[in-house]
Amino acid sequence: MKIAVYPGSFDPVTNGHVDIVERASKIFDLVYVAIIANPEKDAYFDIKEREEMLKSAIRHIRKAKVESFDGLLVDYAERKKAHAIVRGLRAVSDFDYEFQMALTNLRMCPKIETIFIMTDYKYSYLSSSLVKQIAFLGGSVSGLVPRVVLKKLRKRGT
Amino acid sequence: MKIAVYPGSFDPVTNGHVDIVERASKIFDLVYVAIIANPEKDAYFDIKEREEMLKSAIRHIRKAKVESFDGLLVDYAERKKAHAIVRGLRAVSDFDYEFQMALTNLRMCPKIETIFIMTDYKYSYLSSSLVKQIAFLGGSVSGLVPRVVLKKLRKRGT
Amino acid sequence: MKIAVYPGSFDPVTNGHVDIVERASKIFDLVYVAIIANPEKDAYFDIKEREEMLKSAIRHIRKAKVESFDGLLVDYAERKKAHAIVRGLRAVSDFDYEFQMALTNLRMCPKIETIFIMTDYKYSYLSSSLVKQIAFLGGSVSGLVPRVVLKKLRKRGT
Amino acid sequence: MKIAVYPGSFDPVTNGHVDIVERASKIFDLVYVAIIANPEKDAYFDIKEREEMLKSAIRHIRKAKVESFDGLLVDYAERKKAHAIVRGLRAVSDFDYEFQMALTNLRMCPKIETIFIMTDYKYSYLSSSLVKQIAFLGGSVSGLVPRVVLKKLRKRGT
Amino acid sequence: MKIAVYPGSFDPVTNGHVDIVERASKIFDLVYVAIIANPEKDAYFDIKEREEMLKSAIRHIRKAKVESFDGLLVDYAERKKAHAIVRGLRAVSDFDYEFQMALTNLRMCPKIETIFIMTDYKYSYLSSSLVKQIAFLGGSVSGLVPRVVLKKLRKRGT
Amino acid sequence: MKIAVYPGSFDPVTNGHVDIVERASKIFDLVYVAIIANPEKDAYFDIKEREEMLKSAIRHIRKAKVESFDGLLVDYAERKKAHAIVRGLRAVSDFDYEFQMALTNLRMCPKIETIFIMTDYKYSYLSSSLVKQIAFLGGSVSGLVPRVVLKKLRKRGT
Repeated sequence: MKIAVYPGSFDPVTNGHVDIVERASKIFDLVYVAIIANPEKDAYFDIKEREEMLKSAIRHIRKAKVESFDGLLVDYAERKKAHAIVRGLRAVSDFDYEFQMALTNLRMCPKIETIFIMTDYKYSYLSSSLVKQIAFLGGSVSGLVPRVVLKKLRKRGT
Repeated sequence: MKIAVYPGSFDPVTNGHVDIVERASKIFDLVYVAIIANPEKDAYFDIKEREEMLKSAIRHIRKAKVESFDGLLVDYAERKKAHAIVRGLRAVSDFDYEFQMALTNLRMCPKIETIFIMTDYKYSYLSSSLVKQIAFLGGSVSGLVPRVVLKKLRKRGT
Repeated sequence: MKIAVYPGSFDPVTNGHVDIVERASKIFDLVYVAIIANPEKDAYFDIKEREEMLKSAIRHIRKAKVESFDGLLVDYAERKKAHAIVRGLRAVSDFDYEFQMALTNLRMCPKIETIFIMTDYKYSYLSSSLVKQIAFLGGSVSGLVPRVVLKKLRKRGT
Repeated sequence: MKIAVYPGSFDPVTNGHVDIVERASKIFDLVYVAIIANPEKDAYFDIKEREEMLKSAIRHIRKAKVESFDGLLVDYAERKKAHAIVRGLRAVSDFDYEFQMALTNLRMCPKIETIFIMTDYKYSYLSSSLVKQIAFLGGSVSGLVPRVVLKKLRKRGT
Repeated sequence: MKIAVYPGSFDPVTNGHVDIVERASKIFDLVYVAIIANPEKDAYFDIKEREEMLKSAIRHIRKAKVESFDGLLVDYAERKKAHAIVRGLRAVSDFDYEFQMALTNLRMCPKIETIFIMTDYKYSYLSSSLVKQIAFLGGSVSGLVPRVVLKKLRKRGT
Repeated sequence: MKIAVYPGSFDPVTNGHVDIVERASKIFDLVYVAIIANPEKDAYFDIKEREEMLKSAIRHIRKAKVESFDGLLVDYAERKKAHAIVRGLRAVSDFDYEFQMALTNLRMCPKIETIFIMTDYKYSYLSSSLVKQIAFLGGSVSGLVPRVVLKKLRKRGT
């Protein structure tokens, strides 16, 4: 059984994230969608809310499972017996950061691969922070996030 | 059974290529290492030589199989019932080309994923053309290519 | 009549910004130089000061008009009946952000184009934050900003 | 009257090119779609064929006019009394070349601006050479090029 | 006598920094390793701690000398009669920032060159902030930083 | 005595190249400006012509010396007892190639550093191939190349 970890803040989950989980679950037998519980970084939604939204958003993907973790990603991935860490690759994205993390993780745990999955071009510009920025300024993010996130954002009165 | 296609010119195979095949075979059950038989592009080694060198270089990887194909990559991948096309991702590489091809393939065949596997940093600068350039100028490529390629390059008197 | 919106923080306006307004006003009949009134982001100069400096700096450009707005840029641009959003393109700049915003705006309002105008190479490295950083450390920003900004920066005692 | 020149090889014209002409014609009163007649570079279609296909592809855009030119782009643009040179900006593209040309043209003819128009994300990966490559390998380029190009490519038996 | 300044936050010094000092001292007769004492930026270690760690880490490099400075880098470099400002160039790094600073410094002080020294590929992903992030999450940074930093990080209980 | 090698095709030498030689000669005691005599690559000017133009263009730089070499750059640099290989760093340039070569050279000859010297921003877009392209299309390259090259290009009737 091939296992992958797909880590992220998911604050909140976007349709681009869901796209990656769908693609990863075609390659792996089990995909842990893992929320990084970093107490340092200010999150808009708390861990619980993010978990609920994620669970609802990927309910249709049977091979995927939502969890959260703190500490080093490679330690979590090892506990899960993961073969790979999955990252979404957008045409428009911060390579420097992705490369640095991938090379670092490779060094700390050589047996776990980092693979980048190409997203559909229609998600090439999408990010959680963009979604929050648009919602905050009163724009519509319908079509960019799962329905559960849409509702949550409205409730928060942003 | 999860199947991947790892396409390339492999003219000649480098240690960076072997590294990617090893990593891919940890994720997939079968990896077709597929030489693109493009009659348009001038190759230094002919298809037969490239196949022989590749076979020898990855003999130790039981899940990998060397083939060659012409025509569209996605057509070949479909015939092989592949779940994914694998590309090596080097810190130093031509993203534009990789992105363009990945997005094109995704459009032509949405059900086959393109995944990028991170190579070890020690291969981040390595390419077949670099190997040929160094060998041509009389430099040593020992450590950059499998032994079988080393012999072949010497025999060619480059 | 062709109308453009040139949005920015202009905190403070630099000679690079003025260069873009001059270029844009050769293409468009009316250019709204629009200060983004984002209460979230800490500004060095308040909206009023930024407006005054901008007005003074582009007084010689008859087709340009300074305004400020809050909310979504595309909503503002639509109210102004703009045909295009103008962004300066520096050889040294953050493409990722520019691309993401341009693709997002295109999606939210398909009828308004985003165009990037090439700045003179002598402004390729210039930004408002650089100007503030130099001034803060006691360096001279003469030649980088309009005279009105120079005076203002000195008065602030930076 | 605001005039623009949109130069290119158009070998052949793609839907991405047509998208740019449509966007440019919303900003300018007259857009010269100008084929670069570079005898040095090997073209797949000759100038006449490229002109015919272009004319057919943009027939619906009243403000656009197809021409071809040799010599320096800035000289041609000056003869046409153009205010700007238009280039399409794809998320996936060769910036280095675009920047170099834009800065060079700005130096040779400071009064003509270079502006980059953002294409729809669905054309972000599209190029003439990609179209030819796919067609050559037997793939379908339907949806990537205007119908007239589709016919022409089939006739050529590629 | 050729003099260079190698500025940085060194919060804390990494093996990548030491690598650059070693390389720079092969080219220059005297290398000032200069800690930027920026009161604005939050540092993890205070200036004194950073100086102590740096001094210990480069004790074996006779031509290098640790100092700290505030104000403009070019002013400091001029006081030191430096011929060049040295920056490490990692394959994975933020070029935009480096370029902007180099062009700015060149403009403010044309007689002092900025040179970038290529680091070993094994340091291509290394940065002070990465080191702190790993240490903070409980990972081992042994091999990434000098022994003196390792001890210090442990003492701080991160 | 600190020695550097500044390799290139110099086909022909531009003012950007001269700028780099001037900067390098402020840091090093002797700079070999070394023409790569690559019989494979088609040159516009032959080695002799390139040497003559280079010699004339940098006559005023006493510490620089023109030579040509074939074979591996690192072998040549070692014979010259060079401490460093110098490359010009333009804001607009091909990093991938530069990185790949620098990392390769570092691997083949660890004791010779590769350093990148920042050019003036006014040369950021300049290259030999651009010069030839403009001259070939009948444009003026005055200000981009030394006078000796200007004459030579005119004589060639381009």
